[in-house]
Amino acid sequence: MSTGSTATAQQLRQALDGPWSEVREEARTQLADGRFAGDPGLDVPAARARVLDQMREIAKLGLADRGFRREHGGTSEPGAAVVGLEMLAYADLSLWVKSGVQWGLFGGAVENLGTERHTEYIRRLITLDLLGCFAMTESGHGSDVANLETTATYDPATEEFVIHTPTPSARKDYIGGAAEHARMAAVFAQLRTPAGEHGVHCLLVPIRDEQGNDLPGVTTSDCGRKGGLPGVDNGRIVFDQVRIPRENLLNRYGEVAPDGTYSSDIDNPSRRFFTTLGTLVRGRVSVGGAAAAGARVALSIALRYALKRRQFGNPDDGGETLLLDYRMHQRRLLPLLARSYALAFAQNDLVRRMHLVQTGQDIDPHSQRALEKRAAGLKVAQTRHATRAIQECREACGGAGYLTENRLVTLKADTDVFTTFEGDNVVLTQLVAKEILTAYADEVRDLDALGWVRFAATMAGDVVRKRSGVRQLIQTLRDRGGETVDEGDLGKRATQLALFADREDYLTRTAAHRLRARAEETGPFEAFNNAQDHILAAGSAHIDRLVLEAFIEGIADIEDEQARALAETVCDLYVYSVLEENSAWFIMHRFISVERAKAVRRGMNELVDRLRPDALTLVEALGVPESMLDAAMLDDASVYERQ
Amino acid sequence: MSTGSTATAQQLRQALDGPWSEVREEARTQLADGRFAGDPGLDVPAARARVLDQMREIAKLGLADRGFRREHGGTSEPGAAVVGLEMLAYADLSLWVKSGVQWGLFGGAVENLGTERHTEYIRRLITLDLLGCFAMTESGHGSDVANLETTATYDPATEEFVIHTPTPSARKDYIGGAAEHARMAAVFAQLRTPAGEHGVHCLLVPIRDEQGNDLPGVTTSDCGRKGGLPGVDNGRIVFDQVRIPRENLLNRYGEVAPDGTYSSDIDNPSRRFFTTLGTLVRGRVSVGGAAAAGARVALSIALRYALKRRQFGNPDDGGETLLLDYRMHQRRLLPLLARSYALAFAQNDLVRRMHLVQTGQDIDPHSQRALEKRAAGLKVAQTRHATRAIQECREACGGAGYLTENRLVTLKADTDVFTTFEGDNVVLTQLVAKEILTAYADEVRDLDALGWVRFAATMAGDVVRKRSGVRQLIQTLRDRGGETVDEGDLGKRATQLALFADREDYLTRTAAHRLRARAEETGPFEAFNNAQDHILAAGSAHIDRLVLEAFIEGIADIEDEQARALAETVCDLYVYSVLEENSAWFIMHRFISVERAKAVRRGMNELVDRLRPDALTLVEALGVPESMLDAAMLDDASVYERQ
Repeated sequence: MSTGSTATAQQLRQALDGPWSEVREEARTQLADGRFAGDPGLDVPAARARVLDQMREIAKLGLADRGFRREHGGTSEPGAAVVGLEMLAYADLSLWVKSGVQWGLFGGAVENLGTERHTEYIRRLITLDLLGCFAMTESGHGSDVANLETTATYDPATEEFVIHTPTPSARKDYIGGAAEHARMAAVFAQLRTPAGEHGVHCLLVPIRDEQGNDLPGVTTSDCGRKGGLPGVDNGRIVFDQVRIPRENLLNRYGEVAPDGTYSSDIDNPSRRFFTTLGTLVRGRVSVGGAAAAGARVALSIALRYALKRRQFGNPDDGGETLLLDYRMHQRRLLPLLARSYALAFAQNDLVRRMHLVQTGQDIDPHSQRALEKRAAGLKVAQTRHATRAIQECREACGGAGYLTENRLVTLKADTDVFTTFEGDNVVLTQLVAKEILTAYADEVRDLDALGWVRFAATMAGDVVRKRSGVRQLIQTLRDRGGETVDEGDLGKRATQLALFADREDYLTRTAAHRLRARAEETGPFEAFNNAQDHILAAGSAHIDRLVLEAFIEGIADIEDEQARALAETVCDLYVYSVLEENSAWFIMHRFISVERAKAVRRGMNELVDRLRPDALTLVEALGVPESMLDAAMLDDASVYERQ
Repeated sequence: MSTGSTATAQQLRQALDGPWSEVREEARTQLADGRFAGDPGLDVPAARARVLDQMREIAKLGLADRGFRREHGGTSEPGAAVVGLEMLAYADLSLWVKSGVQWGLFGGAVENLGTERHTEYIRRLITLDLLGCFAMTESGHGSDVANLETTATYDPATEEFVIHTPTPSARKDYIGGAAEHARMAAVFAQLRTPAGEHGVHCLLVPIRDEQGNDLPGVTTSDCGRKGGLPGVDNGRIVFDQVRIPRENLLNRYGEVAPDGTYSSDIDNPSRRFFTTLGTLVRGRVSVGGAAAAGARVALSIALRYALKRRQFGNPDDGGETLLLDYRMHQRRLLPLLARSYALAFAQNDLVRRMHLVQTGQDIDPHSQRALEKRAAGLKVAQTRHATRAIQECREACGGAGYLTENRLVTLKADTDVFTTFEGDNVVLTQLVAKEILTAYADEVRDLDALGWVRFAATMAGDVVRKRSGVRQLIQTLRDRGGETVDEGDLGKRATQLALFADREDYLTRTAAHRLRARAEETGPFEAFNNAQDHILAAGSAHIDRLVLEAFIEGIADIEDEQARALAETVCDLYVYSVLEENSAWFIMHRFISVERAKAVRRGMNELVDRLRPDALTLVEALGVPESMLDAAMLDDASVYERQ
């Protein structure tokens, strides 16, 4: 399918593959024979069985080892683990999710929240000798997990915990693996000892025997059909006074002695809980990556189709017009392609940061927290992008796009929940915004709403500008952006970066001001709620800036001149599309004049025109394996290339 | 579930039910026992069989008779036919689509394109004694149906037509009913007689025998799984020199005499074809209505959920906060609810106009054409709204929204193709734009691209303002809008209407100007393509104005004061959300000042605040039958109303 530009495509692909390019190349080989592909024709029981079989193959290939520390039987390569599993998302998102549940969520909980006494579980879960699930979400509490209702009450008499579901809303819900395959659950519950309450902790609770029957006191059920992900057995768990040994508490951040005495290195219960959650950051990093992979598959299919499919005559040359030669088709798909590039670089950067923190190479005390914020922000950006891009791709392929044989509807259905799980996008955007509002001040996260509003209000605007972890390149570009934007050239990176940063700073400062002004009149919740749209806009602006910076840094690493020049144009298109989407805001706040805004709109058209001849190169560079592009509408050349 | 405000809800529902409110009420009774509901647990063969069974019930109830003329065995009530079938969309979109294929598309083709000699077919298709399909789309041509490749060649020797598929791309594709149930196809094909080509005509071709086997020369196949609509058997048909009697030509607009002589009342082949298509306008009217019905179901479910579900503590009162008390949740759902109101009034108005034209009560020669434009525009607006609103509803319900038991994912999957079928939304928006650019000039539609561009360029800007069919109310409001917008109050209907009209006029005038300026430099296709985004914006602006006018007129008919006042606020929210979405454009073109644009943004928040207490009333007024809101997450009060 390639044209003469494959050399450039290869250079670009290398850049997009990022620090773990050899992992991606290896995965492309493993994916080539289609053994990990999904089969949308299977019914639910068959789809679930197939995915479990595929996971056993993955375990045999050793792909799961990477995510665990050497002392636990792994190879201590968290970056490679995330990237390697992400490649499975090209094949089948059910397989990716279920692998993520077993090795990422369940395995991650045991590895990060447990201690030496839990090592044997890790060895067994890597090989799938032990199938687990991650039982955090409850019917009544999904976003607000600090207020889960399930209880784990310590009984010193028997040295056991009693796990219990006290209300209907305390039922564990949507839990991947709980419907059928999991034998053990990592259960998040409110820990109680005779001395009192200690907040949410995680405990290992056996839920099924080897034959798959519920153990005494455990009642599992099936969530039934979902919008997609048929290969994932999501279920519900209700506990009726289930007793587990004291040692099943994952006790890294909190321990209960045989006599019932509670101890923890972290005194503040809220902070302890957020530290617990923070160790699970890999889940969010992974979800964003998989969503972006789904979007890349969809764009690869829709753009290739647009390069084959013709419709309506062109009186200028007498033939029929290729879809991608229509202005609107370019406008629909190419800015989304540009965003996929931007996010790929941002994801590589995120995984690299995660790897450095999790392997102890980055020991800056602020890095873990900055990583959490970045992971949350990029999870939002990538899952939102996937939802939008896949939908647009489906529509851009017309009736053919609606047929399952062309993959787009399955991608849409499977990724649809990504905006929800591992943190609802609205809640996560708010989390990002709170972080920037409180300017990384550690003590603030533990404040209640009132305290938080008070703190945010005292923050000086320029605190936001103090950012850590920025490479010299970006700093230089920022310094160069000293001229006011209205003088600067919109095509210059320094000007673009200044616009993105100005938007973030302005929104953050004014949100803080608004919170202060209102908190005195109304209660703090009212003050917060009244400004919620404003706060979320600040969070989104922050995410946009992070993505742009990662894109710029990613381009700087491309050595091949032609590939770099092409990537620069793609970056311009990304920037212009963000400016256009937010042009009302930029004009209203006098950062862009009306004339400049019109230039942005014209610029969009010029940029898609300029990129049109390189569309196939840009698609090839996305690096989706050919075997994963098995859409029937792309095969039948006799139908689609009659010209 | 109701509160004390049911009286207002009933008044509003009455208004939204429109001219065929008794048809809607009757349908609510018929839907109440759930016999027409879908069952997402069925596999494809069972889903198809169930829908066919349900259709037989519908036929028995006499609901299909309404769409056909008395002389054909019907009751000549086209308006009631569209509204009655639309109500089925509340129950199951597969049922609605398959009913639409049989009675609307297939039946409509026979009734409107056939003559007396085809009457017997109509009697049989009404009762389902004859199952048919509508074979227009081909693999190679979906939007550009004038260039279909299937041929119908007359053989005077045997007085037969020979139906043939000359190329792979000429295969009939995505045809509802073709995979399994249809016995006869209304085939659109290029008509050839010994004297030459006569353009696309429709012919009745038997495709299966009574046992369901393909007839000689006919090869049908199954399109397989789709994104949704499992109960519809979409398939493909290939014809190999299939012979049918001369009388099977649907000969209202073109006849072939036994000796092969072609004759038609319409000389121009292109105009003949568009006249043919124009008679099928009911399909587009219906699709828009069904999409809007799907959106109403989703909004009813998501808003009711938002009125039960609580998450995160509210420190001001100590309890947990209802989702709909969050500013962002209001901003996500209430503007979509307002748009559903706007579109419901617009759809009622459209059906009324269609009914008047199709029953011969409106004989203005321009009305048919104006109806086609309006139907195309509202099809776009309603299907786009459905796609967006249902997606937002799914996400606003979190993980629960992803479970099939809560209906939202099925609604999303089933309606997804609505933006594509009965005319791709981009192509239809372009059609609307071309119509307004050529200012209803009949002769222009037959021009080729070059001629069209030339014509459009000569058009005077103010032609656009001459509009037909506008009621006195709107005229009065327009006249009152004489003051410039920046002086006018944004809350006044006259000002709002002026803004919508100004946007449409400006976009149309400037698009025409741009076409003229470019057509001389480049070819006409290039000129058109270069301005495609601009042309489409003009089309969208036109649609927005039509919808607003219909909303205003609909409100004027509400007698109850409280209900009318509430509807006025909803209308404001609709207007403000359109202004906000287009605020960059309004500012850039100096129709709204920056200060006013900020007031719009603030106004959005004030309006959702003001509507919040009436949310349940507004949902009840949508009129979705209670039995169609069987989402599990709404049942379990013990989980969701713990406060």
